[in-house]
Amino acid sequence: MSMMRPDAPIEIAGYQWVPPFARGFVRDLRPRWACEEAGIPYRERLADVTDKPGWLLDVQPWGQVPIMRDGDIVLFESGATLLHLGEKSEALLPRDPQQRAAAISWLMGAFNSVEPWMFEWTNVTAFARGEEWAKLRRPSLEEFIAKRLAPLEKRLGGQDWLGDTFTIADIAMVTVLRAIGGSQLLADHRATQAYVARGEARPAFQRAMSDQLAAFDRNGPPASQGE
Amino acid sequence: MSMMRPDAPIEIAGYQWVPPFARGFVRDLRPRWACEEAGIPYRERLADVTDKPGWLLDVQPWGQVPIMRDGDIVLFESGATLLHLGEKSEALLPRDPQQRAAAISWLMGAFNSVEPWMFEWTNVTAFARGEEWAKLRRPSLEEFIAKRLAPLEKRLGGQDWLGDTFTIADIAMVTVLRAIGGSQLLADHRATQAYVARGEARPAFQRAMSDQLAAFDRNGPPASQGE
Repeated sequence: MSMMRPDAPIEIAGYQWVPPFARGFVRDLRPRWACEEAGIPYRERLADVTDKPGWLLDVQPWGQVPIMRDGDIVLFESGATLLHLGEKSEALLPRDPQQRAAAISWLMGAFNSVEPWMFEWTNVTAFARGEEWAKLRRPSLEEFIAKRLAPLEKRLGGQDWLGDTFTIADIAMVTVLRAIGGSQLLADHRATQAYVARGEARPAFQRAMSDQLAAFDRNGPPASQGE
Repeated sequence: MSMMRPDAPIEIAGYQWVPPFARGFVRDLRPRWACEEAGIPYRERLADVTDKPGWLLDVQPWGQVPIMRDGDIVLFESGATLLHLGEKSEALLPRDPQQRAAAISWLMGAFNSVEPWMFEWTNVTAFARGEEWAKLRRPSLEEFIAKRLAPLEKRLGGQDWLGDTFTIADIAMVTVLRAIGGSQLLADHRATQAYVARGEARPAFQRAMSDQLAAFDRNGPPASQGE
């Protein structure tokens, strides 16, 4: 059963609706997934992506989701929400000092050593796809990304998750790698591809995704985007 | 006085020497700076950047520095080392729950919402500077980076640091922004430029930088790079 509860002390901010290309990739998926894994109740608060409200812009420097409230505390950046939730549950962040250190290291690796190149890959293959620079840039970028995937491929050939158990590092890395889901780049790294599929198959992931998409379906596009 | 001590329980890994373009930008600067701010003793362990040793490659998936040891614990990714050191000292990470949450949010923002574009900016303006795609990409990339800098500029016009006090978020953000130091892009954001200068002027920053550079000068290039 979904952990969404209207009166939960934790609030996760997402969007009411996003255009089709962004469906399934909005980053409040990350803390939603973490809450589902750990059985932590949360409520959602949804912003209009076409007309971002003050309660989002006042907290998040770049107007991005998610932001998260926990009682009086407010956080932004999905990585910060994962670290915050991790402190609440051993199902997300092990208490063993070395396992904890490894999980936080891999989480930072996902956000700073892998995702930066995913951002530009999405630019090159989608947003700027028709531009000359994007066509010229793609080969060297994919070569670089393959070097970032190689150590993951080696590691995930021998184990299910980045550490001994599933942690917030896997929530980070699986959601980062989903950006190249369906690409030849990921298909060329079969253990990594299987890892992403393993993450997406978890019931907690599926509940989080389902709740995120349900909001989009329920709300539909804002009037300014309608026909 | 520098916090480097040969027998310190904390070990920070850096490089023996790097080529001139990388001087001052190697990322073990971040945990060194944090140790200097908090008065935490550390020892350095230096790897040959042209022939990376097993003790680095076995720990760090991409063979990057820094890695950090603290007794039996080993971490990688400079962000993870900052979070780990932050737990040791209020001079790095406030104990007030909201100030702590804000510092971790800004730290993640530096690593995931700002630095990704600095990586590509360095590619475009340095490593790939002669390539056609790099010339074509530069204007749109700089336009995007300016949007990332705008909220920083607004915030830092009114306060010295990202939070109420200096924290690991500032170590992260200042070192991220140094990548565009000296550029018109940074000069166009005067409050942010002054913030970077304020960070670099701190005695702890200067000791960390001085110790990093001293190793390069002491060791010089490896034989394979010599004349």
